Amino acid sequence: MPTNKSWTLAKYPEGWVREDDFKLVEAPVPQPKDGEVLIRNLWLSLDPYMRGRLSQQKSYVKGVEIGEVMTGETAGEVVESKHPKFVPGDTVTTPTGWQLYGCAKGELLTKVDATRAPLSYFLGCLGMPGRTAYFGLKDIGAPKPGETVVVSAASGAVGSVVGQLAKVWGGRAVGIAGGAQKCAYVVNELGFDACIDYKAGNLYRDLKEVCPKGVDVYFENVGGETLDTVLKLMNFRGRVVVCGLISEYNATDPYGVKMFRAILVNRLKVQGMIVFDWLERYPEANRALLDLVAAGKLKYRESVLQGIESAPRGLIGLLKGENFGKQLVKLA
Amino acid sequence: MPTNKSWTLAKYPEGWVREDDFKLVEAPVPQPKDGEVLIRNLWLSLDPYMRGRLSQQKSYVKGVEIGEVMTGETAGEVVESKHPKFVPGDTVTTPTGWQLYGCAKGELLTKVDATRAPLSYFLGCLGMPGRTAYFGLKDIGAPKPGETVVVSAASGAVGSVVGQLAKVWGGRAVGIAGGAQKCAYVVNELGFDACIDYKAGNLYRDLKEVCPKGVDVYFENVGGETLDTVLKLMNFRGRVVVCGLISEYNATDPYGVKMFRAILVNRLKVQGMIVFDWLERYPEANRALLDLVAAGKLKYRESVLQGIESAPRGLIGLLKGENFGKQLVKLA
Repeated sequence: MPTNKSWTLAKYPEGWVREDDFKLVEAPVPQPKDGEVLIRNLWLSLDPYMRGRLSQQKSYVKGVEIGEVMTGETAGEVVESKHPKFVPGDTVTTPTGWQLYGCAKGELLTKVDATRAPLSYFLGCLGMPGRTAYFGLKDIGAPKPGETVVVSAASGAVGSVVGQLAKVWGGRAVGIAGGAQKCAYVVNELGFDACIDYKAGNLYRDLKEVCPKGVDVYFENVGGETLDTVLKLMNFRGRVVVCGLISEYNATDPYGVKMFRAILVNRLKVQGMIVFDWLERYPEANRALLDLVAAGKLKYRESVLQGIESAPRGLIGLLKGENFGKQLVKLA
Repeated sequence: MPTNKSWTLAKYPEGWVREDDFKLVEAPVPQPKDGEVLIRNLWLSLDPYMRGRLSQQKSYVKGVEIGEVMTGETAGEVVESKHPKFVPGDTVTTPTGWQLYGCAKGELLTKVDATRAPLSYFLGCLGMPGRTAYFGLKDIGAPKPGETVVVSAASGAVGSVVGQLAKVWGGRAVGIAGGAQKCAYVVNELGFDACIDYKAGNLYRDLKEVCPKGVDVYFENVGGETLDTVLKLMNFRGRVVVCGLISEYNATDPYGVKMFRAILVNRLKVQGMIVFDWLERYPEANRALLDLVAAGKLKYRESVLQGIESAPRGLIGLLKGENFGKQLVKLA
């Protein structure tokens, strides 16, 4: 019988996350109870929201407790089922967290068709990040044909889908990313109209040049100075989708947003989102995204670390922007 | 023949407005051209938005030019008409600005029925500030019965109407104002459920105490630290109506908003507004507000200065929060 390995929370990080905030625990593989399914996890998704779970502050979801297995989505296959809807061999996405094996109630699992796209995609462009991009852009950003959509963290799991959807829906897509390599990828591979390297140090000037008609929709994943800079370029009645503020997550002092006044002067709508709010419409997004991937219209890049041991390191790198594409850990 | 007196812009203020930024000019009373109407102004309205006109910065309306008559709404009576819809003696509101007499095209005038309410009310609770409160609260704030609505500058022209409408529409109304006297008025005369004196220095604690279920709608007229404090108390899916940021208007360095993160965490909708966007629905607001005033359900207080000479002083006092109620200048 194989052994399970799980990353648990050892202590709450202060400021930047450190590897020793987590503890790797070995234990026997758990047994499913009635209504539960045992899953062997093959892929672990690492996502910026995880920083929020490493905190006792009020947020939209309760934080992880000390000693608990770290929160996360995985993709894997069913090993044993005590739930009528699942049989061994089924491929599923699960909320079982940072571990090799996990048991979960059948209701918490999503069966995915790994014959139409690689299993790992269901953690990225066909999973939570893809649906986040889809609903945030469609319902809040709501770009009209010809409008300019700017998205930060443009090479990441959410940002890359946002820009490509903006193009599919008839808009102009402009990315913001860190480094020339990511920017080249965003333009040449993903097909954005432009991508600005914020690390080059001239974000306002560079962005203004590629957005000659201003910015109609800003899909925000970053916050901080990037947010202040884009706010200066927003058009009348522009929309700002506040999906993430990754530059803030490790900050001990929050950044002060100086261009709040733009919301008044340009009558902006600025709205926070979390994809759970669209739970009932997940099938709509899943269908649309899978069709686009199958048609070759939604490209996607993964950044893969090997082995569960690398999970904390992967999260830290993600929070520092070191990943290039959707960050995953290959567990088996 | 009487003489006209007009305040013109002498120079753009830097930081706080000063009286010598304006120049009082005397000239003959102007003659209306074809399609125009000559109005004798009886009341001049002073409003926070005027600070934005004293600037060459991009805003929703072009600024006043040096030497031009200062922008402002007035209420007065028609002296001479070369427009078929107006006759001498008609009472109107006008955009003729800070002067005793002005000519305007008939299309820019609004006839008002000064038999149902005092003429000056059509510059306040029955005019632009009242309509601002009505549409901002109804369409953006959209309070549901039982929800808590907080409004800053609660004793002012807009804020006082916001809170009273919140009550009429079944919500709880909580004001923020400067000083015990204004707060007592907001509760005892206007019927708000509570009003917090931000000058007492415990805004967060005091507001939290009177909003035990949090804040669902925040109608913002002030900005700065007040905004940051209320953002901490916003409920999931709360709405922030950004109507004004008076604390910022004279600032040379903008305030940095630290609680932007609340927009993400609590999925807030934050939207800037200007009442012009509802131009086609003005009759709806005018009817509703006049009915409420006539029924004694919408109370209102004016702060009146005598004579056109006092206009610059009145605007400066308004921007410092020295007024108590809607600021007007009685011109005749």
